[in-house]
Amino acid sequence: MSRDALFRQAAEAQGFAPDGEIQVGGNYVPLLRDGPTLYISGQVPRIGSAVVVTGRAGVDVALEQAQRAARICALRALALLQRELGGLDGVRQILRLTVYVQCGPDFTQHSEVADAASALLQQVLGPAGVHTRTSVGVYQLPKNATVELDLIAAAV
Amino acid sequence: MSRDALFRQAAEAQGFAPDGEIQVGGNYVPLLRDGPTLYISGQVPRIGSAVVVTGRAGVDVALEQAQRAARICALRALALLQRELGGLDGVRQILRLTVYVQCGPDFTQHSEVADAASALLQQVLGPAGVHTRTSVGVYQLPKNATVELDLIAAAV
Amino acid sequence: MSRDALFRQAAEAQGFAPDGEIQVGGNYVPLLRDGPTLYISGQVPRIGSAVVVTGRAGVDVALEQAQRAARICALRALALLQRELGGLDGVRQILRLTVYVQCGPDFTQHSEVADAASALLQQVLGPAGVHTRTSVGVYQLPKNATVELDLIAAAV
Repeated sequence: MSRDALFRQAAEAQGFAPDGEIQVGGNYVPLLRDGPTLYISGQVPRIGSAVVVTGRAGVDVALEQAQRAARICALRALALLQRELGGLDGVRQILRLTVYVQCGPDFTQHSEVADAASALLQQVLGPAGVHTRTSVGVYQLPKNATVELDLIAAAV
Repeated sequence: MSRDALFRQAAEAQGFAPDGEIQVGGNYVPLLRDGPTLYISGQVPRIGSAVVVTGRAGVDVALEQAQRAARICALRALALLQRELGGLDGVRQILRLTVYVQCGPDFTQHSEVADAASALLQQVLGPAGVHTRTSVGVYQLPKNATVELDLIAAAV
Repeated sequence: MSRDALFRQAAEAQGFAPDGEIQVGGNYVPLLRDGPTLYISGQVPRIGSAVVVTGRAGVDVALEQAQRAARICALRALALLQRELGGLDGVRQILRLTVYVQCGPDFTQHSEVADAASALLQQVLGPAGVHTRTSVGVYQLPKNATVELDLIAAAV
């Protein structure tokens, strides 16, 4: 199956409709290309106008829901790459993924949350989806989102 | 008006004197250039030797003061770019801005804080100041600063 | 003394055995090279299978122990660079270091923690170890680690 078909499949599984989702910001932009390097702004688990997973992992939010949040963030990043490159075959490599998890004081499964985003990137992009990663536990996130992630990618 | 004049104007509005502000670190540096890519170290809202906005947004610090902190951090980053490049016309693009906000447990206006830095970058640099951005809420920052930001830029 | 000898010396001082330490991840990798640019995933202070410094700086963990954590994280990053490049002489420059410190609500010595990592990088790599840096205080980290750091480097 093509990457774009794999992406549609993964997006449907999360109730995420790529075409309508991504709005353009004001004095910042969701994606910026510098030669082959693509910077993606921080993505929260927004579907349409709603942030669909909010609250603190390990307190208000179970691991499985935090993982769902990470998947939706990753789908948003893929949607941005797809739009910029005219299709996900244009992605040479995801270089760097940073995953911020809003969590309780004793929650230490940030890697398990981030794994959901990493797995989705690899599921859709294959070896091009394998990346370096940092995951940390933060105190709050915009709109009370449970997860935010950003990434740097390389275009073919 | 030139970018450098716009910068002086924005700096004066915040009581920030570009020429005297930036000290060189020890085993790290405030700016490093790798080909066209410029990395700027994390900037706190320091004017002279004092961090002028400290404490937790949403608890000790109102949104407007956190936004002032973000503006001063952005001015420091611009001062570093200006010194390195001999003037702000040397900036091709701000590529990535990461904004860390020290906040209370229920503060979710990180984007509104970061908007103040984003707007200042665009006000001074025009389209070259438009960037990708991530903003998160952290538990503490060096010197109890309310905001810290770093960025990656490209030189012409 | 060569960089690789300096590294062995610094590693021995921390009880860190470079050859056995670094395991390969699953759908993410510890290091990824894109042309001359090397991205290193977030490193926690792990020796063998144990994270050796855990807990909250300023509450459970004294400054000196947090600094030890930062040194071990930096050693892990150096071990990855050494393995990729066939020796540390292959490092042209450390470009960017980001240091996350799990801390208490009033801990503000993040820079002092990060200094330990910065000093070790410079001790081993000389001028090539001088970098830009951001240090922040976060609420939690994977495996309850006290410190996590990632970096971007350039190969010769």
